Amino acid sequence: MAGLKYMSGFGNEFASEDSRCPGSLPEGQNNPQVCPYGLYAEQLSGSAFTCPRSTNKRSWLYRILPSVRHKPFSPMSCGDLTESWNEVEPDPNQLRWKPFNIPKSSEKKVDFILGLHTVCGAGDSKSRNGIAIHMYTCNTSMIDKCFQNADGDLLIVPQQGEILITTEFGKMMVEPNEICVIQQGMRFSVDVFRETRGYILEVFGAHFELPDLGPIGANGLANPRDFQTPVAWYEDHTVAIGYTIVNKYQGKLFSCQQDFSPFNVVAWHGNYTPYKYNLENFMVINCVAFDHADPSIFTVLTAKSTHDVLNNAVSNRHSCLSHPSAWL
Amino acid sequence: MAGLKYMSGFGNEFASEDSRCPGSLPEGQNNPQVCPYGLYAEQLSGSAFTCPRSTNKRSWLYRILPSVRHKPFSPMSCGDLTESWNEVEPDPNQLRWKPFNIPKSSEKKVDFILGLHTVCGAGDSKSRNGIAIHMYTCNTSMIDKCFQNADGDLLIVPQQGEILITTEFGKMMVEPNEICVIQQGMRFSVDVFRETRGYILEVFGAHFELPDLGPIGANGLANPRDFQTPVAWYEDHTVAIGYTIVNKYQGKLFSCQQDFSPFNVVAWHGNYTPYKYNLENFMVINCVAFDHADPSIFTVLTAKSTHDVLNNAVSNRHSCLSHPSAWL
Amino acid sequence: MAGLKYMSGFGNEFASEDSRCPGSLPEGQNNPQVCPYGLYAEQLSGSAFTCPRSTNKRSWLYRILPSVRHKPFSPMSCGDLTESWNEVEPDPNQLRWKPFNIPKSSEKKVDFILGLHTVCGAGDSKSRNGIAIHMYTCNTSMIDKCFQNADGDLLIVPQQGEILITTEFGKMMVEPNEICVIQQGMRFSVDVFRETRGYILEVFGAHFELPDLGPIGANGLANPRDFQTPVAWYEDHTVAIGYTIVNKYQGKLFSCQQDFSPFNVVAWHGNYTPYKYNLENFMVINCVAFDHADPSIFTVLTAKSTHDVLNNAVSNRHSCLSHPSAWL
Amino acid sequence: MAGLKYMSGFGNEFASEDSRCPGSLPEGQNNPQVCPYGLYAEQLSGSAFTCPRSTNKRSWLYRILPSVRHKPFSPMSCGDLTESWNEVEPDPNQLRWKPFNIPKSSEKKVDFILGLHTVCGAGDSKSRNGIAIHMYTCNTSMIDKCFQNADGDLLIVPQQGEILITTEFGKMMVEPNEICVIQQGMRFSVDVFRETRGYILEVFGAHFELPDLGPIGANGLANPRDFQTPVAWYEDHTVAIGYTIVNKYQGKLFSCQQDFSPFNVVAWHGNYTPYKYNLENFMVINCVAFDHADPSIFTVLTAKSTHDVLNNAVSNRHSCLSHPSAWL
Amino acid sequence: MAGLKYMSGFGNEFASEDSRCPGSLPEGQNNPQVCPYGLYAEQLSGSAFTCPRSTNKRSWLYRILPSVRHKPFSPMSCGDLTESWNEVEPDPNQLRWKPFNIPKSSEKKVDFILGLHTVCGAGDSKSRNGIAIHMYTCNTSMIDKCFQNADGDLLIVPQQGEILITTEFGKMMVEPNEICVIQQGMRFSVDVFRETRGYILEVFGAHFELPDLGPIGANGLANPRDFQTPVAWYEDHTVAIGYTIVNKYQGKLFSCQQDFSPFNVVAWHGNYTPYKYNLENFMVINCVAFDHADPSIFTVLTAKSTHDVLNNAVSNRHSCLSHPSAWL
Amino acid sequence: MAGLKYMSGFGNEFASEDSRCPGSLPEGQNNPQVCPYGLYAEQLSGSAFTCPRSTNKRSWLYRILPSVRHKPFSPMSCGDLTESWNEVEPDPNQLRWKPFNIPKSSEKKVDFILGLHTVCGAGDSKSRNGIAIHMYTCNTSMIDKCFQNADGDLLIVPQQGEILITTEFGKMMVEPNEICVIQQGMRFSVDVFRETRGYILEVFGAHFELPDLGPIGANGLANPRDFQTPVAWYEDHTVAIGYTIVNKYQGKLFSCQQDFSPFNVVAWHGNYTPYKYNLENFMVINCVAFDHADPSIFTVLTAKSTHDVLNNAVSNRHSCLSHPSAWL
Repeated sequence: MAGLKYMSGFGNEFASEDSRCPGSLPEGQNNPQVCPYGLYAEQLSGSAFTCPRSTNKRSWLYRILPSVRHKPFSPMSCGDLTESWNEVEPDPNQLRWKPFNIPKSSEKKVDFILGLHTVCGAGDSKSRNGIAIHMYTCNTSMIDKCFQNADGDLLIVPQQGEILITTEFGKMMVEPNEICVIQQGMRFSVDVFRETRGYILEVFGAHFELPDLGPIGANGLANPRDFQTPVAWYEDHTVAIGYTIVNKYQGKLFSCQQDFSPFNVVAWHGNYTPYKYNLENFMVINCVAFDHADPSIFTVLTAKSTHDVLNNAVSNRHSCLSHPSAWL
Repeated sequence: MAGLKYMSGFGNEFASEDSRCPGSLPEGQNNPQVCPYGLYAEQLSGSAFTCPRSTNKRSWLYRILPSVRHKPFSPMSCGDLTESWNEVEPDPNQLRWKPFNIPKSSEKKVDFILGLHTVCGAGDSKSRNGIAIHMYTCNTSMIDKCFQNADGDLLIVPQQGEILITTEFGKMMVEPNEICVIQQGMRFSVDVFRETRGYILEVFGAHFELPDLGPIGANGLANPRDFQTPVAWYEDHTVAIGYTIVNKYQGKLFSCQQDFSPFNVVAWHGNYTPYKYNLENFMVINCVAFDHADPSIFTVLTAKSTHDVLNNAVSNRHSCLSHPSAWL
Repeated sequence: MAGLKYMSGFGNEFASEDSRCPGSLPEGQNNPQVCPYGLYAEQLSGSAFTCPRSTNKRSWLYRILPSVRHKPFSPMSCGDLTESWNEVEPDPNQLRWKPFNIPKSSEKKVDFILGLHTVCGAGDSKSRNGIAIHMYTCNTSMIDKCFQNADGDLLIVPQQGEILITTEFGKMMVEPNEICVIQQGMRFSVDVFRETRGYILEVFGAHFELPDLGPIGANGLANPRDFQTPVAWYEDHTVAIGYTIVNKYQGKLFSCQQDFSPFNVVAWHGNYTPYKYNLENFMVINCVAFDHADPSIFTVLTAKSTHDVLNNAVSNRHSCLSHPSAWL
Repeated sequence: MAGLKYMSGFGNEFASEDSRCPGSLPEGQNNPQVCPYGLYAEQLSGSAFTCPRSTNKRSWLYRILPSVRHKPFSPMSCGDLTESWNEVEPDPNQLRWKPFNIPKSSEKKVDFILGLHTVCGAGDSKSRNGIAIHMYTCNTSMIDKCFQNADGDLLIVPQQGEILITTEFGKMMVEPNEICVIQQGMRFSVDVFRETRGYILEVFGAHFELPDLGPIGANGLANPRDFQTPVAWYEDHTVAIGYTIVNKYQGKLFSCQQDFSPFNVVAWHGNYTPYKYNLENFMVINCVAFDHADPSIFTVLTAKSTHDVLNNAVSNRHSCLSHPSAWL
Repeated sequence: MAGLKYMSGFGNEFASEDSRCPGSLPEGQNNPQVCPYGLYAEQLSGSAFTCPRSTNKRSWLYRILPSVRHKPFSPMSCGDLTESWNEVEPDPNQLRWKPFNIPKSSEKKVDFILGLHTVCGAGDSKSRNGIAIHMYTCNTSMIDKCFQNADGDLLIVPQQGEILITTEFGKMMVEPNEICVIQQGMRFSVDVFRETRGYILEVFGAHFELPDLGPIGANGLANPRDFQTPVAWYEDHTVAIGYTIVNKYQGKLFSCQQDFSPFNVVAWHGNYTPYKYNLENFMVINCVAFDHADPSIFTVLTAKSTHDVLNNAVSNRHSCLSHPSAWL
Repeated sequence: MAGLKYMSGFGNEFASEDSRCPGSLPEGQNNPQVCPYGLYAEQLSGSAFTCPRSTNKRSWLYRILPSVRHKPFSPMSCGDLTESWNEVEPDPNQLRWKPFNIPKSSEKKVDFILGLHTVCGAGDSKSRNGIAIHMYTCNTSMIDKCFQNADGDLLIVPQQGEILITTEFGKMMVEPNEICVIQQGMRFSVDVFRETRGYILEVFGAHFELPDLGPIGANGLANPRDFQTPVAWYEDHTVAIGYTIVNKYQGKLFSCQQDFSPFNVVAWHGNYTPYKYNLENFMVINCVAFDHADPSIFTVLTAKSTHDVLNNAVSNRHSCLSHPSAWL
C-alpha cells in the first residue's frame, strides 16, 4: 500500500477519477441526463444547502449502482457503544484510564466495529450538539462490511497498529502519529494488520476546521497543505451472500444488506471528503522568552460550539504542566 | 366570508381598528391612562424586549376585558399530541405515511383540537429548541372554545377543506394551496365546513422569516407583499356557561374557563400578528440551462436554527428528483 | 390639503393605488407583460440587489410614461450649493450661525431649489461616504419643475412655513415640528405658502433607520407606527413648454426637459418610499433619579457610518447642558 | 468589617496583593520558575482559552499550597437542591411564593449550604445551557467549610441579614439592597450574623455582563465604576480535623477534605473575580412624557442566551404595571 | 499551447512543481534553511497576515533568483492610463462607447501595456477603495517585459483574440468567452496572436470571490470546480540587455530592469494565484413561471465593498430588460 | 520623578483622585449639582455615545476651571507637520531614512511641538481614515504650553532621551524601550532632559487595542496588566502672561491662550486615558521547531481598519528575515 496517492490541501474543491475510467467525471455540469459509463450521480451533503460558501460542504459521487439500493435497516447490538451518559452518576474527581486490552486474534476475532467502546460524552446526537469519546481495539479486518456514522464526524487517532481505511472517496493508510477524519454519512471499511488500538473523537452537529490564527499570521500550527485526501478508487464487486452496512443513527447501531460493494464510486468532486494529517508536520509555536502559553497553542483542528465563550471547558484550575504533544 | 379583508406585507408595523369603533386605536402613544371606549391596553411580546429592530416583535391590543380575567388552568387529556419522542426508538429507514383518516361527523364530532395528531419531532419546547410535525383531522367547528400554543409558532397547511380562523387580530379564511402562521401565544378558534385535514409544522424558539435571497436579488420566491394579515374584528360576547381556553404548554394541554369571548380586541397595532400566504404567488426560480438546483430553491419561509451550519438536515444522499411543489 | 391621507409604519412593504384607477396595482406579480391600464412598470432600487432582507430597499412604480423619456441633462448653476469643503480652511472654534434671511417674494421669486445653501459637510458623494448640511429659504412654489438627488437621502426639517411635497409616491404636507425624508433618486416638487425656511441633512451612502433600543425595550423614542408614508396620487399632465427635472449628481446640478409631469405614478408598492414624522410623538426617555443621559437619548433616526466606533463625532468635551428638543 | 476595601470597576484587569506580603505578586510575567515567598501559581479560567479579548476571562492566583491538594470528592446529600425540573409537571398558571421560613438557630443550626432550596429552573448544567433559581435561609456561619459551584455563576441577592463572603480573592460584606456575583469555580465561605434569607440566580454556560446601552449612551443604568471587587486577603490556617470543600457538580453535591484553608491566596491578578454592587447606585432611566418603558429598562446585569431572540421569555401578555425596583 | 494543464477549484490550497525539477517543492515546511535545488523561498501575501482563514491569502514561491534583485524603479509615461477621475466633470446622462480601434501591427507595434486605456473609475488605489475600468487593444506580444499591478486585482475579459498569459505561477491561454483574474502583485506577460481587444475591471482593496448563494443552495451560477489555475512553469533565462518590469503603483507606471526572467518559479504552493473561467460553464438560474429576476442573478464573481448596502450602484431605475449574458 | 505611580491594566474603568483633595471624586453619580470642592464636571468622549460596551470610551474629569474657558484659536505655522501626501509623487522603491538630526539646545531651543516632522502617511483626518508617521527631535521642555491632537491617537516611541509627559490625567515618565499612547483630544505637555528623539504613529478614526490572540490563548504577547495609566495630579496655576494650547485639527496647527494651566484635573474616572507600556514585558512567542512565523506575531497594539482584509499592507514579497524587536 506504499503506492497510495493523496491530494493535498484542507477543504479544497477536489476532483478525482479512477485512472481505469478516464473521462468518468462529468465536465461542466454535475448532473447530466446520462453520465459517462452509465454511472449514477449522487450528491452527499455535509451542511445545509443554504450555508454560506465558507461552511457549505458537499460532494458529487459518480457510482456504478445507487447507494439507496439496499434492504431495510434493522437494529443490532450496540456492544460497548452508548450515548446514555445521562444515566451515569457525575463524578468531579480527576480520572485516568488504564489502556484498554486488545483481544488476541487467536482467541476472538474482533473487527473495528465490534471493537468500539464508548468512554464518555456529553450532549446528544438527536439535538445535534455534543461530543463522544470512544476507543477501538481490534485484531481483524472488516470483510464485506462497512460502517457509516449518521450522527457526526469521527476523528480517529491510531495509537497502536496502522489502519487501512477504504472509503467511498478512496483509500487512506493511517499510522500512529497520524490522525484522520471521516465525516458524517461517509461509508468506510477498516483493514488492520496486527493487534490495533486507537482513540476516536466524535462531534455532533459541527465539522472540524482549522483554527483562525490571529497574530500568528498566515502560517503556523497545522498548515492546510499538509492535509491529505484520497484519490478515487472503486471496486465493481458483487457479494452474493450479502454486503453488510452498519449505520450508527441516534446513538444506536443498525445493519442492512445489499448485494454489491458500496466502494463503487468511479469518480467524484467536491469539498466534503475524508482526510488525514501527519502530526510531524505540526509547526509548533510557543513562548521563547518566559512563561508558557495555554495548551490551545497546540490545536490541530477545532469544532466550534454554539456557545462562543465555551469552545472548551471553562473554569479549570491549571498548575504548571508541560504539554509535549499536539492537542487535538 | 368572501368579504374578508386583509392587509398586505410581511413583518410590517400594521395598525387596524374595527370600523364599528372609529378612533378606538390610541394615537401618538401606546398606553394612555384611559383608552378610547374604556378599552384595556395589552402588549403581546413575540421576542425579548431587548432584541434589535429586525427581530423585535410585539403588538398592542385594545380589548373590552383583559385577557388575564380567566379561572385557573387545569390539565386535560392530550389525545394524540405528544412531545415525548425521546421515548420512541430511532429508525434510520425512509418512512412514508398513509393519509390519516378523517372521522365522519355523523359518527363522532371532532374539532380542530381533538383532531390533532403528532407525527414526529425533535428537541423540546422547554429549552426552546426544536420542531414538531402534527396532522389535524376534524369535522366540526370549535364552539365557545379557543386554542393557544405557548410552545411555539404553528405553520398550518390545509390539505382538504378550507378553515376559517378567528384570532385576536381578526379573521382569516385559509384554503388548500394556502398556508398560514399563528404565532406563539395568539388565541384562535377554527371553523370548518366539511371533513377537513391538514399539516402543522410547529417551531420552538424561533419565528418564521423570509430567507435572504443573495444573488437572486430584490424580488423572487415568496414576495413580502403577497403575505396577508387580518384586520381587527371583535365580538362583545358573554358566555354564561363558560368559554374554554385550551393552552398547549410544555407539550401538554391545559384548559380554563372565562365568561366572555377572547376575541374582544377592538383595535390593535404592531408587527406580531398571524398571517397567510397563497402558494400560487410563489415566484418560482430554477436552472434554465442544465442541471437543477437544490430543493432549498423552493423555500417559502424559514425558521433559523442556532447552528448556522445545520439549518436543515445534513449529510443527505440525493439522487436526482424533481420537486414540483414549493418547499416550506 | 387637510384631506391628505398617509399609511403608518416605518420600512413597511407598502402598497397603494390611486382610487381613480382601481385595480391598477398588478396582483401576484411585479412585472406583467401588459400592466393594468397600459401602465409602465419600473423598479426603483434603494440598495444593492443582493442586500439581506433587513437592508434591501426597492419599490415598484406603475406609471403612465416611463421615467427615462426625457431629453439629455445639461449642467446648470449650483448657486450656493457645494460639496467642495476640502477647499475651505478648517476652523477648530465653536461656530454659530445667525438665521439665514428669507428673500421677500415681492423682491425676488425664489423657489426651494434656488433657495438651497450649503452650510458644511464632510466626505463626498462620489465615494458614497459622508454628509452635508444645507439650509433652504424660499417664497415661491416650484412650477413645472421637480428635484431629484442622485447623491443621497435628504432629511428635511421645516423651521418656518409648512411645505407641501409632491412625490412620485404621493403628497405630504410637512409643518414645523415635523420632519420628512426624501430618499435618494426620488423626484419631488415643493409648494410653499409664505416665506419659508428650514434645514436639510443629506447623507451619502446610507439610509436613515430607527436606532436599536437595547434595554429601552420594544417601545420608546420614535415609535415606528408614527411614521407616515403618502398614498399614490398621479397627474396625467402634459407640459408643452417643458417640464424641468433638476438633478443633483456628484454635488453638481443638472437639468433636463420632458413634456409631461413625472408625478404620473398611478400605483406603487415597496419599502423604498418618502415619509414624514411628527416630533410630538417622540416618546421621551431620560434619567429620573440623578445625573442626565448623553444626548443620543434623543435620537429620532440614525444613518450608520462604516466606522462602528464613530457613528457620531468623537472626543468631544461636554459640560452639563440641557437638550430640550429631539436630536436627529 | 467596616474596614473592608474594594477595587472599583467592572471586568477590569485587577491586581492585588495582601499588604502583609509586599512583592508577592510576580512582576512582568505570570509564571516564574520560583514565585515570591515560594507561592504556587495557578490560573483559574472563566472562558475558553481562545475567546476574543472581550469575553476572555481568567485570573492568576499565587497561593501557599496548591488547590489540588485535597482528598477525593464523595457524594453527599443535596437537601433541597435539585436540577431535576423535567420530572415536575408543568403548570401554566401564574405562581407566587410565600416567604421561606428561616429556621431558628436555637432549634437547628443551618448554614448557607444546608439552607439552599431550589425554586425552579430550566435547561441543565451538563449541556451548559439554562438557569436555576434558589433561596437560601440560614442562621449560622460556615465553619472550616467552603462552597464551590462547578455548574455556573451565582448572583446572590440578600433579602434579610447581611452576609460576609470570604473568597479566594478576598472578603466582601453584602447587605440587603446590594447584590453580588460569585463566578463558576470560585471557592467561598459565608458568615452570617442573624437569621438570614436571600435569593440566588444561577446561570449555566454564560457570565453576567453589563447590557449594551444603545441610544442611552455612555452612562446610565448600572455604571461600571460602581461595581466592587475585593482585595487580596489570605489565612495560613492549618485545619487538623479537616477543612471541607463542598462542590456542586452537574446539579449534585460532593464533598472532600483537606488539611488547610483554601483562602490562602496571597496575591492575584486578572479579570475573573467575584464582585458586588449596591442597587442605590442604579441610574434609573424611564419615560418622562407619556407611556412607560418595558421592564428591561431596569436591567442591572444580563447573561446572554445563545438564542438572540430569546434573551428573556417571549410571548408574554403585559397589562400596565409599575416596576418600582431594579430588574436583574 | 493546446497542451496547457490547469488545476481545478476556486481558492484551493494548490501545490505545483515543474516536472523538470521533481522534489523542488519543500515537504512539511515552507522555509527550509536550504531549499531543494538551491531555490529561494518567497511568500507573496494577498491579505493581512492576521485575516481569518476564509480571507487569508498567500502563496509560497520557490525561485531561481530572488524577486528583489532588480535595479531601482523610475517613472515612465502612463499613456492612456489614469486614476484622476476627480478631475473629470460628472455627467448624469447614460453613456455608451463605440469600440476602441485596434492599431494595425503594420503601422505601429503596440503591446498589452502600451494598449491600456482607462475608461472610468471611482475611489483611489492609495486609500485602497474603488474600481477602475480599462480597455486593452494590442497587436504584439510583450518581449522581455512583464507587468505587475501593485494597486489591485485585474479581471481580464478578452473580446477579440485569445491571449497567452505567462505568470510566476505558470501559463494560461484565455480566449473570448473566458475571463481570467491576475491578483495584486503578480507579475505576468501577455502574448497575442492577432489584433486583440478586451476589457479589464480593476478593484482596489478587495479580492474577487464567489457570491454566497442563499436559497439557491450548494450548486449554481459559477461552480467552484470550473475555475482553473495554472501549473508551475519556469524559464532559466538570462537577459543581458535587460528584462523590464513595469509596475503600476498608485495609478502611475514605473519601470525597472533586471538581467533575468521573473518567470523563474520552479515550484509553488498556496491559495493566492491567478485563475481563469469559461463562461459556458455558468449554471444559469432564473424565473421559470413569471416575472424576471434582478441582474444580480448573473453574478460570476463579486468583490465586496465596505458598505454592506452598496455592493453595487443604488437608486437605479430599471425598465424591463433582458440580460442574455453573464454579469460579472 | 522616580516616585511616579501608575495604575495597571488595559482599558480598565479606572478611578483616581489627587491625594491632596480627598473625596474629590463624586461617589455614586457622575454629575452632581455641586461637585466636591466646587469642581467642574466634564465628560471627555473617545467614541460615539452609542458604541457597545467593548468599544465605548469616555472619562469624567473634575477640574478647577472648565476647559472651554480659553480665547479663540487662530492658525499658526505647521513647521514640518503635514497631511498633504497626495501632493507627493508616489515611489515604489524601498526607502530608508537616516536618523533625523537633533538640534543643539545651545543653538536653537526646540520643544516637542516645534520638533515634529511628518515622514509619511495615507488617508486623511477629516474623513477619519488613515495614519501618519512623524519624528520628533527636541532639546527643550514645553513651558506654559500644551498640545492637543483633535485628529487621532498618538503612539509615541522614544528612541533617545526619556520624556516626562504631563496630561490632564496625571504624569508619565516614558523612556527608550517604552511606548506610550495619548488618545485623541487629550491635552499634554512634554518635558525633556537632553537631546531627545523618537517616533510617533498617528491613527485617525480608530483606537489602539490589544489583538485577539486566537489559539495563543489567554496569555501572551502584550499582557493587559503590564499597561500603566497615570494617577490624578493637578496644579492650580495661574499664568498671567498666558498659557498656550496648541491644537492639531484636520492636519493644521492652531493656538489659543488661557490664563491658567489645563492640568487642573483634581480627580477623574473612566476608561479613556493615556497609558504606557514597557517592551521588556512583551511575552515573545514564535516557532520552536522549524520555519518562522509572520511578523504579526510581534504585534503589541493594533488599530483596526474598516477593511477586514487589509489591516496591514497586502501583496508584499517576503524573503526570510529575522525580526528581532517587537512590532507595533
